[in-house]
Amino acid sequence: MPDGRRASDFVDEKRLWDRQMYLATFGETPRGGVNRQALSAEEIEARKVLMDWSKEIGLTAFIDDIGNLFFRREGTDPALAPVMTGSHIDSQPTGGKFDGSYGVVAAFEAIQAIIDAGIELKRPVEVAVWLNEEGSRFAPGMMGSEAYAGVRNLADMLPVTDREGISVQDALSAALAATPDAVRREFGSPVYAFLEAHIEQGPVLEAEEKVIGVVTGIQGVRRMRVRVTGEEAHAGTTPTAERRDAIQAASKIVTELYDRINEDPQTKFTIGMMNITPNVPSVISSEVVFSIDIRHENSEYLEQMAVLTETICGAYDGPCEVEAWRIAESDSVYFDDRMTDAVEEACIALQTPHRRMFSAAGHDARQLSYICPTAMIFVPCEKGISHNEAENATPGDLRDGAKVLADVLTKLGNDTDKNSKEI
Amino acid sequence: MPDGRRASDFVDEKRLWDRQMYLATFGETPRGGVNRQALSAEEIEARKVLMDWSKEIGLTAFIDDIGNLFFRREGTDPALAPVMTGSHIDSQPTGGKFDGSYGVVAAFEAIQAIIDAGIELKRPVEVAVWLNEEGSRFAPGMMGSEAYAGVRNLADMLPVTDREGISVQDALSAALAATPDAVRREFGSPVYAFLEAHIEQGPVLEAEEKVIGVVTGIQGVRRMRVRVTGEEAHAGTTPTAERRDAIQAASKIVTELYDRINEDPQTKFTIGMMNITPNVPSVISSEVVFSIDIRHENSEYLEQMAVLTETICGAYDGPCEVEAWRIAESDSVYFDDRMTDAVEEACIALQTPHRRMFSAAGHDARQLSYICPTAMIFVPCEKGISHNEAENATPGDLRDGAKVLADVLTKLGNDTDKNSKEI
Repeated sequence: MPDGRRASDFVDEKRLWDRQMYLATFGETPRGGVNRQALSAEEIEARKVLMDWSKEIGLTAFIDDIGNLFFRREGTDPALAPVMTGSHIDSQPTGGKFDGSYGVVAAFEAIQAIIDAGIELKRPVEVAVWLNEEGSRFAPGMMGSEAYAGVRNLADMLPVTDREGISVQDALSAALAATPDAVRREFGSPVYAFLEAHIEQGPVLEAEEKVIGVVTGIQGVRRMRVRVTGEEAHAGTTPTAERRDAIQAASKIVTELYDRINEDPQTKFTIGMMNITPNVPSVISSEVVFSIDIRHENSEYLEQMAVLTETICGAYDGPCEVEAWRIAESDSVYFDDRMTDAVEEACIALQTPHRRMFSAAGHDARQLSYICPTAMIFVPCEKGISHNEAENATPGDLRDGAKVLADVLTKLGNDTDKNSKEI
Repeated sequence: MPDGRRASDFVDEKRLWDRQMYLATFGETPRGGVNRQALSAEEIEARKVLMDWSKEIGLTAFIDDIGNLFFRREGTDPALAPVMTGSHIDSQPTGGKFDGSYGVVAAFEAIQAIIDAGIELKRPVEVAVWLNEEGSRFAPGMMGSEAYAGVRNLADMLPVTDREGISVQDALSAALAATPDAVRREFGSPVYAFLEAHIEQGPVLEAEEKVIGVVTGIQGVRRMRVRVTGEEAHAGTTPTAERRDAIQAASKIVTELYDRINEDPQTKFTIGMMNITPNVPSVISSEVVFSIDIRHENSEYLEQMAVLTETICGAYDGPCEVEAWRIAESDSVYFDDRMTDAVEEACIALQTPHRRMFSAAGHDARQLSYICPTAMIFVPCEKGISHNEAENATPGDLRDGAKVLADVLTKLGNDTDKNSKEI
């Protein structure tokens, strides 16, 4: 580096915060949150903002068939694969200003700091913006990173529809049309390493007054759906003994599931969605479809809980029919030690209070960890609140995350090993 | 009557059935049911059909400020108030071909039979078509009959909105514009008596092989809403002990309510609607609003069950907040004996198998019973299934209901008492 300058010294807290707040205006909600679901009009407008930032900084834009965006600064050695950093800009319908978007804003900030510091790197550095991490509009999520990492096929994603019946394919056409300057890129281009900065979405860093979470892995998850089938009938006339009431049956099952699966307090068990047919007050419901989300760091125990869920649903003894099936499952992943060591060393060099921790939430980094060495950098969020319009973080913490990111990118960008598995 | 002819002899089974099936094409669903919610495009088209029928038969059309339609055949004595018969043509979103619409089709058929028989009546006879009985789009229902009977004020109904935020007032403008030939009528015009034909919506007549139910009254109902308020949070990261999960709390309350309120098998207890916020799989829900519908013939016991419901909701002990409130309540009503006697006498004269019975479902006839002598005529429906696309009835049973209706209308139409309370 010229004059021994560090990229982190050129991270600009105000510039980062202003970009973060500007991005949050796309899909802003009256209660201070963000509703910017994948491939919505708001998300497509936000993509144009990223194109503008990329042009300002002098990066080249690429896009692939699932709509992932990449903004690239070339390295000095054209033979070397890029170091990638980024996250996603889609949000939950009542999401916050930071989940996902911070990882993208921090990526821009870190690369701009490297440029501002006058640091040339051997490897290209890229901002990656993965499509539809949240999966609230098109389920399940992680589409961009899964398609990129070859975890799921593009052909299985394109026909997925939202509640209005709009398919990913149709929604994607508008997104591709909105970024005509992005060069089309094939899936499977080599990546040397991937880093994702993100708010913690939990209370640990704030409670322990740490600024950086050195993320060592991501807990496993089982996602399921349960369909309870009853029979529509008149609420006022149908004798109790003849009823097949889907809401009654589903509530009983839901209550038992919460009681049984929550026995170990380390388990995270959530039923967040219930779709009811026909959902009117004077008709006995004929169908309830509800979601199940179970997470646990111990993959073996997690699988036991998934099987117990299936057993409880299968043992339901009543006039309705109950069917449970899995829609996504992943065991816990553990990040490459050399990547987590690199993040920790940067924290030490910057004298930033930090701790190693496991991620309770899922992230695109999981998918990337299957194809290249990967790590994550967590920063605190207020009271651990996330997936909520009240989500909040401090400018200083966001800055410190970007500083660590900038220095780790600098280190990785000068690694010359061809095989990314041996950094 | 000329030549001693009976109106019932001129009831035409095929004409009645054809009209019933034609009306069912407005809002028909792929599964053979009807989705013709109040003031929808489909319901407005169906209103035009009624205007056409009215013109064919030679009736005069009237409409009032809530969109109730009236089709009138004049009597020979202009000083006498009309005998009214009818029901509603709106349906549940997944409703059937007969609920409500049969009462309107039977009314047209009975009046046409009286005309075809060449019978002149002293009183006018009117088909009444009450707005929004079901209340599935604009809750609560019974708007037309309640406004007419002065049970609820028009001003309280007009601002009610559907899920898309469209108000009754706005939807009504389209309906009024669609029937320009109908003469505007004020609320509160005198009615001598009201008769409503309807499918039973229960299994009793079919099981006992009776064709006519002589309805002696309508059971009382309590309608409530319960709001459970939790806190949105990330499904993967929020520790179990810190969660305020609205679906978890609501399911527990719903399960307890079903267990406790259903202790007396005569009680009809239904939770048919649950609206969840934000209703996505990876977010702990922050709010569940659910409906409660309790019915029982014994008004005193019914009120006890409503209070017990409030007590159970109030006693909920958990991290969420629970609020319950009533949106509609009515005690059981008992129809005028002279009206039920008139229906029974017509059945006997026609040698039609019949029985007296109480209505478990609510009907517009409840509201009319507050302002004039009222009765209902039930016909069987297949397996008692109603509020369901599979709702079915036989042409012969529908014919027999219209025959009884035609003869009772003939009798009432020649009553000359000025005071309808003393027929």
